[in-house]
Amino acid sequence: MDTYMPMVRLGEPMRAGGIAQVIESKHPKYKPGDIINGLCGWQEYPVFEPNRADGVPPTKLPAHLDPALTLALSVTGLTAYFGLLDIGKPKPGETVLVSGAAGATGSIAGQIAKLKGCRVVGIAGGPDKCAWLTNTARFDAAIDYKNENVEARIGELCPKGIDVYFDNVGGEILDAALLHIAMHARVVLCGSISQYNVGDQSERYGIKNYNALTVNRGTAQGFIILDHLDRAVEGLLCLHKWVQDGKVVQEIDVQHGFENIPATLGRLFTGANLGKQILKVSDAPLPLRTSGIEKAVLAVLSAYYSRRA
Amino acid sequence: MDTYMPMVRLGEPMRAGGIAQVIESKHPKYKPGDIINGLCGWQEYPVFEPNRADGVPPTKLPAHLDPALTLALSVTGLTAYFGLLDIGKPKPGETVLVSGAAGATGSIAGQIAKLKGCRVVGIAGGPDKCAWLTNTARFDAAIDYKNENVEARIGELCPKGIDVYFDNVGGEILDAALLHIAMHARVVLCGSISQYNVGDQSERYGIKNYNALTVNRGTAQGFIILDHLDRAVEGLLCLHKWVQDGKVVQEIDVQHGFENIPATLGRLFTGANLGKQILKVSDAPLPLRTSGIEKAVLAVLSAYYSRRA
Repeated sequence: MDTYMPMVRLGEPMRAGGIAQVIESKHPKYKPGDIINGLCGWQEYPVFEPNRADGVPPTKLPAHLDPALTLALSVTGLTAYFGLLDIGKPKPGETVLVSGAAGATGSIAGQIAKLKGCRVVGIAGGPDKCAWLTNTARFDAAIDYKNENVEARIGELCPKGIDVYFDNVGGEILDAALLHIAMHARVVLCGSISQYNVGDQSERYGIKNYNALTVNRGTAQGFIILDHLDRAVEGLLCLHKWVQDGKVVQEIDVQHGFENIPATLGRLFTGANLGKQILKVSDAPLPLRTSGIEKAVLAVLSAYYSRRA
Repeated sequence: MDTYMPMVRLGEPMRAGGIAQVIESKHPKYKPGDIINGLCGWQEYPVFEPNRADGVPPTKLPAHLDPALTLALSVTGLTAYFGLLDIGKPKPGETVLVSGAAGATGSIAGQIAKLKGCRVVGIAGGPDKCAWLTNTARFDAAIDYKNENVEARIGELCPKGIDVYFDNVGGEILDAALLHIAMHARVVLCGSISQYNVGDQSERYGIKNYNALTVNRGTAQGFIILDHLDRAVEGLLCLHKWVQDGKVVQEIDVQHGFENIPATLGRLFTGANLGKQILKVSDAPLPLRTSGIEKAVLAVLSAYYSRRA
């Protein structure tokens, strides 16, 4: 959203992912009553034009999926799912390092890596988040970047080197991780939140250890979840099952009210949220029924952390 | 070699690729008279132990290949061949940018990209090298990094963005290129010669625009030619044919004499060489015959630019 801000023109809503129920449709694929997941924006009544060349068609969701959990997983969970599995390609026994590990994407990425038989080390800010990582999310170890020497701790906790680095933060921590990558390492460039609010290019942190990619025949690959949405339902079904079976913990931080959207976005930058940040635009319950409803209500809106499409 | 320097122990020869003729062999694959290409080192009489776990077995060369041309192509030509084709994966009509473009690797990489139907822009130092790129090596355009604004010129010469960036230099030019990558771009991290002689880590140039890889779903992949040597003969036969057919220009800068090896290595850092730098340890002609020869002579030794294995 930080990237979207300067792109949105006057009169347009801010972009954001959300879950909504269809009340009217001229498109054969979507029928009134369907629950959809799409770029709803900061608004109560989104209109989708799935056939527009520049439009991202909303995903029709299986009716049995819990809407709040689906929204919680729909962008950040899928980002973790496709980013870790398709870009990171972890193998059993490998070492996976995750930054922003207590966040919505990082916590899921680390837990999926555990399910795949990897040793998983997370980096997060503060002792509470680190304790949550090892006690609740079952990471093997955690590094507190606010109180520890990150580079030294990576060396201690990843003695065979990092096979997959799932990077949500960029900057200094990315540079430290590069010093410890193993042969043929994969660096998943998911985000660099540490650098988004640095206004001037000259103040941005420069990565000095990229030559480690050459020496170790490593790959750093960027990706955007929008490219993988054709397989969204596959990922959501899998993630739902893991959460329902207690194999993946998905914590949800719910805020309320349309007027609180900006303040809720701000929570991501102060680190106030633990787990996925969502916001209920209206407290009307989901699923809605169209019969007898005068107006549609977009019930849940995600103030998720997103990037330029 | 700059990387090897601190690794070599007293009494060991410096590492270097070379071409030699076998005079004695206890290995069934190699027979006296065979011409081999391998890590001969800075010495006249290399001994290979192909079965050692840490050894790189020398490549037995087809007898009809010209030895000097083979050596000229054997590391840097193969680096260009596998780096561009296997890592860069250029498609017809794409834009390929090459840094260090007048060098041994860059000039071949750019010419192969032309053969694959790409628009090719090279970056080199000084008007002479740039004129050589467009007039002799048939690049579409050249940027003189010593006299032009590299970032602005990349923008002008790559209006649709860079699909493949074959990077030999790293540093500021890599950062400028990242600002202009196209969607799904591939960055081939072949080397970063601009940073090798920067002693202190704090003085190294930091890459600030790596987030372009995320935004554009790009990939930056490092590689080392040693991993591809099992296919060396395939690459050499292909490169020989292109050179013999006049489709690829391979210029060779030959220096002479064992005692000149260090000074010859230095030529790569001052940019004195144009094209592949090799050195003849002995002026005895190749191919040598073992009958009647008292001692083997390693006839050609490559002071090639190499990296940590």
